[in-house]
Amino acid sequence: MQDQKVLDHAQSHKGMVRVGKDEFQPALFELIEGWLGTAPIDVVACGMVGARQGWVEAPYSAVPCEPIPVAPFRVPNTDTRIRAFVVPGLKQTAPPDVMRGEETQISGFLATHQNWDGVICLPGTHTKWVQVSAGEVVSFRTFMTGEMFDLLGGQSVLKHSVGEGWDDAAFAEATADALSKPEQLAARLFGLRAADLLRGQDSGITRARLSGFLIGAELAATRPYWLGQQLAIIGAENLSEIYAKALQQQGAFVETANSTQCTLTGLLQARNLTRQTA
Amino acid sequence: MQDQKVLDHAQSHKGMVRVGKDEFQPALFELIEGWLGTAPIDVVACGMVGARQGWVEAPYSAVPCEPIPVAPFRVPNTDTRIRAFVVPGLKQTAPPDVMRGEETQISGFLATHQNWDGVICLPGTHTKWVQVSAGEVVSFRTFMTGEMFDLLGGQSVLKHSVGEGWDDAAFAEATADALSKPEQLAARLFGLRAADLLRGQDSGITRARLSGFLIGAELAATRPYWLGQQLAIIGAENLSEIYAKALQQQGAFVETANSTQCTLTGLLQARNLTRQTA
Repeated sequence: MQDQKVLDHAQSHKGMVRVGKDEFQPALFELIEGWLGTAPIDVVACGMVGARQGWVEAPYSAVPCEPIPVAPFRVPNTDTRIRAFVVPGLKQTAPPDVMRGEETQISGFLATHQNWDGVICLPGTHTKWVQVSAGEVVSFRTFMTGEMFDLLGGQSVLKHSVGEGWDDAAFAEATADALSKPEQLAARLFGLRAADLLRGQDSGITRARLSGFLIGAELAATRPYWLGQQLAIIGAENLSEIYAKALQQQGAFVETANSTQCTLTGLLQARNLTRQTA
Repeated sequence: MQDQKVLDHAQSHKGMVRVGKDEFQPALFELIEGWLGTAPIDVVACGMVGARQGWVEAPYSAVPCEPIPVAPFRVPNTDTRIRAFVVPGLKQTAPPDVMRGEETQISGFLATHQNWDGVICLPGTHTKWVQVSAGEVVSFRTFMTGEMFDLLGGQSVLKHSVGEGWDDAAFAEATADALSKPEQLAARLFGLRAADLLRGQDSGITRARLSGFLIGAELAATRPYWLGQQLAIIGAENLSEIYAKALQQQGAFVETANSTQCTLTGLLQARNLTRQTA
């Protein structure tokens, strides 16, 4: 675990969806070409870059297993100035589920939390709930909560009623409502539009309520995951805080971890695996 | 109820979303100008044409009330060859809800079902469940099931896995699953993507399961509406059949009614109200 100092960083908005199979190396070089010398430098990547539509398909490892149970996948035919590796994702057969990228964050989290057993929530477009025991990912479930929030708030009839603001009390109330009556979610959503049409409900309150209904429904489905468990949240700061609040309202004790730090630590671990095998 | 013969029909794909405030009459005239003479002809309309963004805003009537409790709203400043009217929608204060268009279909349905008490389901983009008693709409709830199906199947990550086909058994199984465990809906959705990635689940089966999960969740929320009630479904033929099947699986007895016929009958009733007041 040497070389832990970040010397520089760069980022791009080009995700897998916008980059063709042959465009990954050029997109990477736009960011890092200035850092390269003549001797090959190791590039270690994780996430959708290893999907079928990614740079190279890195086959899933099957749970239960360590978050990074095998050496990262070497990308063939790269520019000679780099050796590129992709961390494989994890799959679960029953119920069917997959992850790419979160395994690296979990690995990084566990590296700094020796003997940690419990449940990790990784909120995002596709939120993951991951059961960890004895250093292994035992099981996990994925929720499309973030994507549904974006679609409903940005592209459904609710877009006319959802604004930029936020209201903590409205969020808490909606979360509790969905947790206690999850079967009513489908009924609650259009009610947000009607409340705007009939009584001009504030658009920030509407946004908080939409988020609360969706996260509440997710917490209803994941109750066996979080009830009475040791909990950690790894994610973007704002979103982690929202999930932490919702869980704390239910009496859960939650630790939050910085997702960038977890990713970097996990990638370092992956790189150490490549050195063993190289 | 004279003049019941349909002499001709015409339709346009220009909905409220694509037509500006001043473009309603031109859009209408594209369709019907050939039918007009010199004496004014009555045009009776219902639906989003009466919304704030529509041709003329026709204020909602509050339930409980008859489906069309007041004379349609006269559109001001039309071409002299027409007298145009818009049927007002219905609103409910608690829980907040609104409808525009369905009230006309309900009115048409009740005209041919004397003394009918029960619950009417009107499936569509925004499915309505309407409790009817003694000729009045007592209460109703709206579900964004159709819009969510379109967004999830067409614009979320599921679009890569949802195809054109259908599978009755997969639909029935998914409906029953969502009805018995509605809190698991949020978990089921991403499972459709994973089942495709991991075992190449047929895209028609995926489509039927997506529909089944969403309709099952709606039926879980509307159980008090349909359990042990006299039921009618008014909607497009295919969609009505899907809802009827799902309800019949739960042991409900369901009658289906032709939505075009209900709309025409309802509009005739609305026109008769304008004659009384004209």
